[in-house]
Amino acid sequence: MSPQKKLLLLGTFVHSKTPQDLDFFHNAGIAVDAQGKIAAMERGGAADGSGSEIKTRLLEKLGWSEAEVDVTEAAQGQFFFPGFVDTHIHAPQYANAGIFGKSSLLDWLETYTFPLESSLKDLAKARRVYARCVRRTLSHGTTTAAYFATIDVAATNLLADLCLSMGQRAFVGRVCMDATEVNPAYYRDASAEESLEATRQTIDHVRKMDPGFDIVSPILTPRFAPSCSREAMARLAQLHRETGLPIQTHISENLGEIQLVARLFPEADSYADVYDRFGLLTPRTVLAHAVHISDEEAELIARKGSKVSHCPCSNTCLTSGPARVRWMWDKGIDVGLGTDVSGGYSPSILEAARQAAMVSRHVAMGIDMPNDGGAAADDAAATGKDEAKDDAKERAKLTVEEVLYLATRGGARCVGLEDKIGGFAVGMEWDAQLVSLGQVGDDGDVREQDADEGPVDVFGWETWEDRLAKWLYNGDDRNTKRVWVKGRLVHRRGRGEGKDCEVKRKDHS
Amino acid sequence: MSPQKKLLLLGTFVHSKTPQDLDFFHNAGIAVDAQGKIAAMERGGAADGSGSEIKTRLLEKLGWSEAEVDVTEAAQGQFFFPGFVDTHIHAPQYANAGIFGKSSLLDWLETYTFPLESSLKDLAKARRVYARCVRRTLSHGTTTAAYFATIDVAATNLLADLCLSMGQRAFVGRVCMDATEVNPAYYRDASAEESLEATRQTIDHVRKMDPGFDIVSPILTPRFAPSCSREAMARLAQLHRETGLPIQTHISENLGEIQLVARLFPEADSYADVYDRFGLLTPRTVLAHAVHISDEEAELIARKGSKVSHCPCSNTCLTSGPARVRWMWDKGIDVGLGTDVSGGYSPSILEAARQAAMVSRHVAMGIDMPNDGGAAADDAAATGKDEAKDDAKERAKLTVEEVLYLATRGGARCVGLEDKIGGFAVGMEWDAQLVSLGQVGDDGDVREQDADEGPVDVFGWETWEDRLAKWLYNGDDRNTKRVWVKGRLVHRRGRGEGKDCEVKRKDHS
Repeated sequence: MSPQKKLLLLGTFVHSKTPQDLDFFHNAGIAVDAQGKIAAMERGGAADGSGSEIKTRLLEKLGWSEAEVDVTEAAQGQFFFPGFVDTHIHAPQYANAGIFGKSSLLDWLETYTFPLESSLKDLAKARRVYARCVRRTLSHGTTTAAYFATIDVAATNLLADLCLSMGQRAFVGRVCMDATEVNPAYYRDASAEESLEATRQTIDHVRKMDPGFDIVSPILTPRFAPSCSREAMARLAQLHRETGLPIQTHISENLGEIQLVARLFPEADSYADVYDRFGLLTPRTVLAHAVHISDEEAELIARKGSKVSHCPCSNTCLTSGPARVRWMWDKGIDVGLGTDVSGGYSPSILEAARQAAMVSRHVAMGIDMPNDGGAAADDAAATGKDEAKDDAKERAKLTVEEVLYLATRGGARCVGLEDKIGGFAVGMEWDAQLVSLGQVGDDGDVREQDADEGPVDVFGWETWEDRLAKWLYNGDDRNTKRVWVKGRLVHRRGRGEGKDCEVKRKDHS
Repeated sequence: MSPQKKLLLLGTFVHSKTPQDLDFFHNAGIAVDAQGKIAAMERGGAADGSGSEIKTRLLEKLGWSEAEVDVTEAAQGQFFFPGFVDTHIHAPQYANAGIFGKSSLLDWLETYTFPLESSLKDLAKARRVYARCVRRTLSHGTTTAAYFATIDVAATNLLADLCLSMGQRAFVGRVCMDATEVNPAYYRDASAEESLEATRQTIDHVRKMDPGFDIVSPILTPRFAPSCSREAMARLAQLHRETGLPIQTHISENLGEIQLVARLFPEADSYADVYDRFGLLTPRTVLAHAVHISDEEAELIARKGSKVSHCPCSNTCLTSGPARVRWMWDKGIDVGLGTDVSGGYSPSILEAARQAAMVSRHVAMGIDMPNDGGAAADDAAATGKDEAKDDAKERAKLTVEEVLYLATRGGARCVGLEDKIGGFAVGMEWDAQLVSLGQVGDDGDVREQDADEGPVDVFGWETWEDRLAKWLYNGDDRNTKRVWVKGRLVHRRGRGEGKDCEVKRKDHS
């Protein structure tokens, strides 16, 4: 990549302090060095919002000159927020977003998914779908994505190329699937040997283009237990131990799938135990879904330090079940969010966060049900007390703050990048988005700050917490005006080059 | 309103034939007379998509000249769709969209809703909120909305004025709430007499501005049983019998609310029975929510011909419960969709349709649950058979076609306008939207048909059914390029006057 200019960002910054708390710092500034690292942060600038005082303080502190920095100043009401982390997305399936009918997992794979994935061995088609997928996810503020590609090495390598050239931090997984029962004859690896060899080819390709795996990293990707031979799983685990590369797969998404796993792996105590037996439960493992895992499985996953990618949209679309984030947190499991395109229809992690809040309410409502449906209700139901039920119901719900944590720091922990991304601190990297919310004028019109005004209406009397809630629930890609990865501007929208942010406006706040 | 030009619409039209089937007619045309009525429809024009042959046929058939019509031709891939009907929305609460914390119904009313509604007696504030709400809902393709306003007559009348001037078909309800227990002292009617008198003032106001209630109609609006005295309910029912005006209220949204109703109305057999006793269950009554109604209540509602407004977003946000649309349909109840802003965060009926599909899957998943949670599972659980469970689960899910039916014809039936709106037929009125989906170019870029390109990506190989699914699941207001009510163009977006639609483009279809 070409050398970058240093950056100064001025204005309001918001990030997760804890899963329960957002930290707002106003009249603040962040300086980013030419390597994309946060070099300094200053808070408590002049309340006039001009940013000039903070700018001076940052430049003096670092001994930088004004000429060597690009300055981005958020207008009143705009704010910088960490980039989103999508911990589970199938890039080839982007072309099917929204197309799933009334299917559930196993028939969905057969009807919609395998045919499309297989067709992406056509590299022109792969380029079209992958380019669009990366562009779209960037526009939604996804600065890091953990991708499943397909079994095709050339197309998988193309996805890695596109991520690097468009500047999205990505884990790119060539999908391993060599078992004969679940995988169709037209779309599977000939053997465990082939799974491993193809995986190595993608690793070599990525190592050549991004030797430090700074932006793009390979990720070992056994599709899911029923798709893989015992040998393939064991050898991928061996490759993990040799290389330290991360692992991603699926677990316990659907009841039919769980029965299938029990039949295919009678020697194992549980679905999670299958992965553990073959050495795939590691601190660098991301397990998508975990909807129906038992207490014992949750404890095993927590003990091994493996992570869970919660995919609320997909779990509802495919009628898989409502996953219990609070319960997993209580078990000590790190959780991030996945769009799971195209099990989930939306490529937006903001939408995934919104749906995580909604699904958590369905978990809570399960506790309400006349027959105490919903596994989350088990503890409460056992006590037989309404009060315990009410508490369990209340606890199950995720707040605005919690789902935004899942979308950022939670996801960063999931993919092992919590020291680099997901929040703002000196030494971390500048993966961020500039968010702008529409300001309603006196006559009910939205002011023409930007012709590309988004779906959020701020009337002016809202607190900052309310504004974040409005963004979470009604925001979309129109509200994400700029996106940076490791200090590089990788997406921008709005009229006119450089004009959208600098415009100063009077605001009701 | 100023006299309108006649319209010719040419291209692809899509509407619901039945709840289960969409009808697609390509290379077709619709002629709309100066009163906004569909005067003629022609199908089967030249497959080159030019529309000129259909245009000629329509003009000849009607004896109209080219000079007296405005022609709108949908580009390849665009289509005309009936306008959406929002059967339940609180206009004043629009300012709170997305702000509900972890509340449920009764504390939500106290914390968020009553203070905001009360504050809208300030007419400048009311104008700002109401204008924005009507503009937003129009931009989302809502051509008809059943509004709850507030108790303030002047502000309610202002909402009616705004709907008429902006051209949105609307039912505007001045909210009646005279009971002392639930309604706070700062926001309630002094007496049943005042409830009725204020209601009459709004009726008189609307009658003066739109004597035939052609675009805007008053609607009798007892807030919900706990908010109303017995006298107020009885007298509103009497007013309904005198005037034939429709009625809207809430029913059985939340378990705490149901307990409250049982305590306040010990003489009634059920929540529905309360309304029936006072004469409020009529064929012109729209009941919002109906999440927890019993078999007996559903049968009573069906027998009385009253309608249900299903508000999936709200029911999830406020942890009210998952309403069972299939079950209500089976009972013979007409169902429409409501955004229920701001119990629901989104002012979009497309989003409500999407969420109706999602909530129906949560109903289905309830049937899956270990303890057979979810009232929808009752029948299946009683038989104790897995097969019956699987069938019930499968049936509970709503299809793309079904939720789009709910959004259009279902809503039209709900508000008693099924002969006028919700579909395309000679004699019906032209309440419609022009929908455009993004076409992905060969390189993964979206073609610059329109700078305001929406979030849907069509690659070109999709069937028309797939395209509708993509629109339902990922579409937003950017896909709705024009909106008409009764033949009047009430919303448009896209670059350049009249340029967005006429541009002809080569398409993959």
